[in-house]
Amino acid sequence: MTTISTHPPPAPTTKARLLDIMRTRGTVSRVELVGAAGLTPGTITNVIRELLDDGLVQEAGQARSTGGQPRRLLRLRAQAHYAVGVQMDRCTSSVVLADFTGRLVAQKTLQGSGSHAPGEMLEILASRIHHLLEAEKVPFESVLGISLVTHGPQNRVDGTLLAPRPTLQWYGFPLVSTLSRLTGLPVILENDATAAAMGEQWLGDVSAESFGVIYMASGLGGGAVVNREVYRGGGSNTVELGHITLDVSGPPCECGNRGCVENLCGTAAVVARAVRDLPLRRRLGLKDNPAETLNDFNRISSAAVEGDLAARHLLEDAARGLGQAAVTLVNLFDLSTVVLAGPAFSTAGTLLRDHISATVNAAAFNRELQPISVVLSSHGSLAAAIGGSLQVLRTASDAKERRTAPPSFLTRRTPPQFASLKP
Amino acid sequence: MTTISTHPPPAPTTKARLLDIMRTRGTVSRVELVGAAGLTPGTITNVIRELLDDGLVQEAGQARSTGGQPRRLLRLRAQAHYAVGVQMDRCTSSVVLADFTGRLVAQKTLQGSGSHAPGEMLEILASRIHHLLEAEKVPFESVLGISLVTHGPQNRVDGTLLAPRPTLQWYGFPLVSTLSRLTGLPVILENDATAAAMGEQWLGDVSAESFGVIYMASGLGGGAVVNREVYRGGGSNTVELGHITLDVSGPPCECGNRGCVENLCGTAAVVARAVRDLPLRRRLGLKDNPAETLNDFNRISSAAVEGDLAARHLLEDAARGLGQAAVTLVNLFDLSTVVLAGPAFSTAGTLLRDHISATVNAAAFNRELQPISVVLSSHGSLAAAIGGSLQVLRTASDAKERRTAPPSFLTRRTPPQFASLKP
Repeated sequence: MTTISTHPPPAPTTKARLLDIMRTRGTVSRVELVGAAGLTPGTITNVIRELLDDGLVQEAGQARSTGGQPRRLLRLRAQAHYAVGVQMDRCTSSVVLADFTGRLVAQKTLQGSGSHAPGEMLEILASRIHHLLEAEKVPFESVLGISLVTHGPQNRVDGTLLAPRPTLQWYGFPLVSTLSRLTGLPVILENDATAAAMGEQWLGDVSAESFGVIYMASGLGGGAVVNREVYRGGGSNTVELGHITLDVSGPPCECGNRGCVENLCGTAAVVARAVRDLPLRRRLGLKDNPAETLNDFNRISSAAVEGDLAARHLLEDAARGLGQAAVTLVNLFDLSTVVLAGPAFSTAGTLLRDHISATVNAAAFNRELQPISVVLSSHGSLAAAIGGSLQVLRTASDAKERRTAPPSFLTRRTPPQFASLKP
Repeated sequence: MTTISTHPPPAPTTKARLLDIMRTRGTVSRVELVGAAGLTPGTITNVIRELLDDGLVQEAGQARSTGGQPRRLLRLRAQAHYAVGVQMDRCTSSVVLADFTGRLVAQKTLQGSGSHAPGEMLEILASRIHHLLEAEKVPFESVLGISLVTHGPQNRVDGTLLAPRPTLQWYGFPLVSTLSRLTGLPVILENDATAAAMGEQWLGDVSAESFGVIYMASGLGGGAVVNREVYRGGGSNTVELGHITLDVSGPPCECGNRGCVENLCGTAAVVARAVRDLPLRRRLGLKDNPAETLNDFNRISSAAVEGDLAARHLLEDAARGLGQAAVTLVNLFDLSTVVLAGPAFSTAGTLLRDHISATVNAAAFNRELQPISVVLSSHGSLAAAIGGSLQVLRTASDAKERRTAPPSFLTRRTPPQFASLKP
């Protein structure tokens, strides 16, 4: 099985650190690398020589001289490698292709997993990945792998989901090994909110060393970056923000808990409330069917933004609940920045953000020390997929250098079988 | 000001690691140290020689030979240093004295901070510390310092509390500098639940690498150890479990939030409910006054254990709420062990534990991967004070070796002024 163990996270190798710095900063000089990496000029020179020889880095002209020797500049070679990020949600999925610098080369939004059996959905995804690579003329050999990003709970070692969602068939289905067989590429399974956190950390606008993420698609999850590290806890199911109690006397949840955040203020809960308001339902043409949850939510969001009071009240109520979930996140992890990510924030993000921010800044335990900053993700509804692709770029470059690491991630099990797939 | 910055936590020095191993294991051979520390025999021999020269470690006879050379054993020299842990709560306080091995040498339980101005309370504590040292004939010079352990939110750098509790006077009062001046000893400020977590980690029965702590005294707080490290987040107010919402429509809390765990199932909430049940109030002789909250809670606990149904129902209700708070802790930090610590668990700990465990194991997101173990702290109601004293022993030994560390922690500011204090 082609999985990467990311726990416990090993310290990054020197090469990986330099690649990270170049991925974040773009074009740099060796002198800047010395400063940023805290390594000796000799080490930098040697490692950069190897990276140039490997074709991962290229010269990028000279910086304007400030009197001394002109500084030769370096940057990642964009075409050195590519990575695929797949965000799979019940209502919608996205496939993104990133080059070695982390730049988004291509993207494709497609149907969600809700109306498919797992094997069928993975065939659709494999086919789309294949066509994306073909359309962009990306050589198959240069693709490092795929991050399959979806909801939890997950068993990341086995590459399976541990919940019967969207349907019972998905429980325990060998997602990672199947997608790997279908594509011929190494696959990692990742949590959507965690992937969004990684994307924000490495290529986002948030500069805080610690921040939380609320990820909202058809489900609701959370993530945290603490002192520049993604919080991984003891396993693979951290920051399950959708399944914490906001109301002890609230409805029972299929997770076993009661009054869960997801059931009180997730997209499906908002849609369910809107559907019960018959004039609103008619006005917005809500479909009220599980595969349409996100579309319905976006219809409500559009209406709210355009001034529909009923729609606006529904979103404000949800935002208050999300704000209280954010208070829990902030109070437990001791954070002062919260990032909102995922497709549910794409239409009424500003409205939701402002109300979440007001709740958090009235209630968070630490607000006396500094106000809590609530911001929308730099990557919009693609945040999780982009984060996943970045994770592949970072993990794979690191694994390649680490001679002792199991090579499975970088070894293809089978030749690609795209030809046998329907487009 | 005599504070220790513990953030970001530096990697422990080799000496500190060896001292930690000996503190946890007791008597060890050099060969065992090599295995446990993952260092070369040469390094171990050199560092142990220095520790013997410094008087921190002593020879402790020979291990029975298994054929080869008999192994000379080593252990910490108990009298090398001492540390004081002070747990200060509104209703009750404890002072403990630990020797260099972490063994509890003496303890004293005294009144809480609720009925005193901060300066007065600190004078009482300083006086008790002085008398404890005198009674145990511990040389003042051998005392490394004091950990003052209490509720949050705290500014650990300034050594102050950031909440007006127990009274407005306590907000921002220079606790650390005042106690340091009164005792002539270095002082650290620490969160009670975090201190309990440290105590459990280093000298407790819990072997899990990651676990959460629910600390319940007159207030309610939380702590977490993640992959053997105390979770410190970005600052000094992590895991504020008492102030997360369990009921969105619950009563407003002075913290700014609504339906907080502490207000729904903390000791004061249970006592308030018991007091409203007049027959129960009369039967148990409840005092219903803030300084008596813990005593009243213990009266209710005793009655519950002895079969009083009304008392039992109150505790079971509280335990259900605590269980749901534990689910939040477990779901966000991804834990599978929860430790219950603090004086509120001293009388009906088993009853509370069993109900909390039932709730957690019916609702935690990760229970499919492994059942959540809920256990009572090994250190009972002294958990926080003992954890504080251990923290001093560990931090101070480490700071002493770290030449670059600011020496303030180990440098007394003023001679002790005990003589001027009332007993």
